[in-house]
Amino acid sequence: MQASTKRIQEHIETIATFTATPGQGTTRMSYSEQDVQVRHYIKQQMAQAGLTVYEDAMGNIFGRLNGKNPDLPVVLIGSHFDSVPNGGAFDGPAGVVMGLEIATLFKEYNLVPEYPLEVVALVEEEGASFGGGLLASRAIAGQVSTADLKSMRDSQGVSAAERMAALGFDANKIAEAVRKPEQLKAFIELHIEQGPILEQSGEDIGIVETIVGLSQMIVTVEGKAGHAGTTPMNMRADALLASSQLVQQVAGFAVAEGETVATVGKLQVFPNGANVIPSKVIFSIDVRSKDQQKLDRVIDQIKQAIAQAQTQFIKTQIEQPIYVKPINLDKEICQLLTENSDKLNLKSRVMVSGAGHDAMVFAGFTRVGLIFVPSRNGLSHHPDEWTDYDQIQKGVEVIFETVKALTKAKAE
Amino acid sequence: MQASTKRIQEHIETIATFTATPGQGTTRMSYSEQDVQVRHYIKQQMAQAGLTVYEDAMGNIFGRLNGKNPDLPVVLIGSHFDSVPNGGAFDGPAGVVMGLEIATLFKEYNLVPEYPLEVVALVEEEGASFGGGLLASRAIAGQVSTADLKSMRDSQGVSAAERMAALGFDANKIAEAVRKPEQLKAFIELHIEQGPILEQSGEDIGIVETIVGLSQMIVTVEGKAGHAGTTPMNMRADALLASSQLVQQVAGFAVAEGETVATVGKLQVFPNGANVIPSKVIFSIDVRSKDQQKLDRVIDQIKQAIAQAQTQFIKTQIEQPIYVKPINLDKEICQLLTENSDKLNLKSRVMVSGAGHDAMVFAGFTRVGLIFVPSRNGLSHHPDEWTDYDQIQKGVEVIFETVKALTKAKAE
Repeated sequence: MQASTKRIQEHIETIATFTATPGQGTTRMSYSEQDVQVRHYIKQQMAQAGLTVYEDAMGNIFGRLNGKNPDLPVVLIGSHFDSVPNGGAFDGPAGVVMGLEIATLFKEYNLVPEYPLEVVALVEEEGASFGGGLLASRAIAGQVSTADLKSMRDSQGVSAAERMAALGFDANKIAEAVRKPEQLKAFIELHIEQGPILEQSGEDIGIVETIVGLSQMIVTVEGKAGHAGTTPMNMRADALLASSQLVQQVAGFAVAEGETVATVGKLQVFPNGANVIPSKVIFSIDVRSKDQQKLDRVIDQIKQAIAQAQTQFIKTQIEQPIYVKPINLDKEICQLLTENSDKLNLKSRVMVSGAGHDAMVFAGFTRVGLIFVPSRNGLSHHPDEWTDYDQIQKGVEVIFETVKALTKAKAE
Repeated sequence: MQASTKRIQEHIETIATFTATPGQGTTRMSYSEQDVQVRHYIKQQMAQAGLTVYEDAMGNIFGRLNGKNPDLPVVLIGSHFDSVPNGGAFDGPAGVVMGLEIATLFKEYNLVPEYPLEVVALVEEEGASFGGGLLASRAIAGQVSTADLKSMRDSQGVSAAERMAALGFDANKIAEAVRKPEQLKAFIELHIEQGPILEQSGEDIGIVETIVGLSQMIVTVEGKAGHAGTTPMNMRADALLASSQLVQQVAGFAVAEGETVATVGKLQVFPNGANVIPSKVIFSIDVRSKDQQKLDRVIDQIKQAIAQAQTQFIKTQIEQPIYVKPINLDKEICQLLTENSDKLNLKSRVMVSGAGHDAMVFAGFTRVGLIFVPSRNGLSHHPDEWTDYDQIQKGVEVIFETVKALTKAKAE
């Protein structure tokens, strides 16, 4: 019994054609024209693999294999199918294709599970349209309200609810998308690593035991605009000069703490003219650690530094819209995934995920496993994102063995 | 004989109505609809003041009083009438209105000059449309070619030549706009200070003896993008982190040197995502000093720092599109302006201009005088830009006396 690298490649390549930016990577916003196209393809493939297809109120796609006992809790496998603008072909789809391939293997080998198996393709993970990441899994977890969907808007000012309605999904019925803990036995996801570790160590499979805790903060530094030629250095309140020091400090705190990363990824200068002293700078800070104490210490240091940067002329302010604690995934499933890697003679390592994933949300209400496959050059969210198809195949094999065990599947 | 504060106010207020952003400051791009409107007004006012009106190939407006000897070199007075986007009502127009008021005084008191007097309203100084500052005066100096005008484009991709053509000005005839040194006796400009010095010292008139030398540089710092969560701190090549240190250094060099300013006013981060390590940063550096040695030393230090910021993973690169030496204005005219301020019982100071002005270009081929009037809060390029009308009136008086002397005007 072997997963087919050829089928995996065909799926990934086909899904990659559903992009709003051909030749410039994958751009597949949730509820867009490209969403409709990929949705049609995924549903078709699920049906071909013998699954019963349905969609929930959020627009998540499910393919279900009832098995012997349809009333037992479900083993759910899959990932998301949306992308960032000009992203890659693997972030998300690799895990959806894992689900499709495992369903196909079940059909090919007449495997009948005792527990129902469901493949899920989640609609909105990246947050590229409406700003809130992990939206589809959070809807399943019961963390998204109708009001949320009506208030979240994309860059054209259209709400998530309106975009959903155009595809026939009713935000008013979002509560129907919720899965209760007792309805799920486990959720297992495959994702590309989006980092350099597996490639550099020459390993096949990363078995995630912890997803880092993270905080995103937004800092506003306000000074005073002035002419770059006529305002002496000692009469300035330069918001960029003040911010530059903070950017340095933020990185320094993470380095000093260890096992923690801190990044200023987004920074905007106002009015941003070559001959005008910057009056305002807004920048983001992203901090992550697998260790909650380290995470909290670095966040505290950052907040102190932002407060200390205040002077008579410089005002600073910090918001913290996102704070998520580190999450440990299910130990037994981790163990099972490791054993199955060993049996298949694959090189695996237990590791930390530095990125948030749908698995993180599911871990709040069911047992979760997550495996990584290597990313070439650690690259992601980029047209050149790449994972060898046979590496995905190896990941699918590991999950296939694990799913067979969890669903108690037998050949008939 | 006194300049009229009332007339000055009426001119400034009327000119301020010709804006593309009513209620949000003055936005008057060269060759725009607002240019056409203000142009009509200025020509009308010049004619009313008894001047003979003509426009050159660039679109500069002149009003000429032949005087007794039309073949003698001209005493030219004025400033520019374009603005930055959402700028103020005074930067430029104050000097144009100075010209209109002096012509009116000549008419009112039947003053006949021996040398011709010309009032000029220059069309493009700010560089807000086509990127090249001081364009109109540079055309008069013979520094602008037809090819330049055809290649400079505004944000809509339309060339300066095309914009000019729409108003009836022929870029192919730009050479006809050139004034030869022997055709000019002097150029005198009035401008708002755009800085805090006169207001803080309670003085009326700034007599500019030197316009600072300046350099504008563009720095590109390239690192490597990566996921903010999955890339350990020691495996990063963060272009913003490297740039922040440079921003700090740039300011430090100017402070250490003294009598020099250095500003990073514009900075852009790529890809500028909260969870992506910045792969590239492009920023501007603006350095100014009245002392060429200081200017050159700071530029050298900056170039060294940019070079030293290179590592195995960080690439840096610097361009220097603009370098202008400090320019000394005419000593005799400075002396005359000071004497006339004293005679009028005005408080004046000899000072340095930290901003470039049309006067700087004219200084390359004729004798030039430039006076400043106080800017409230030192503010400029802003809707709240303000100079009291009676402060402008005082400046006009000083130049009026000086122009009478230079043109050898007599009442008839």
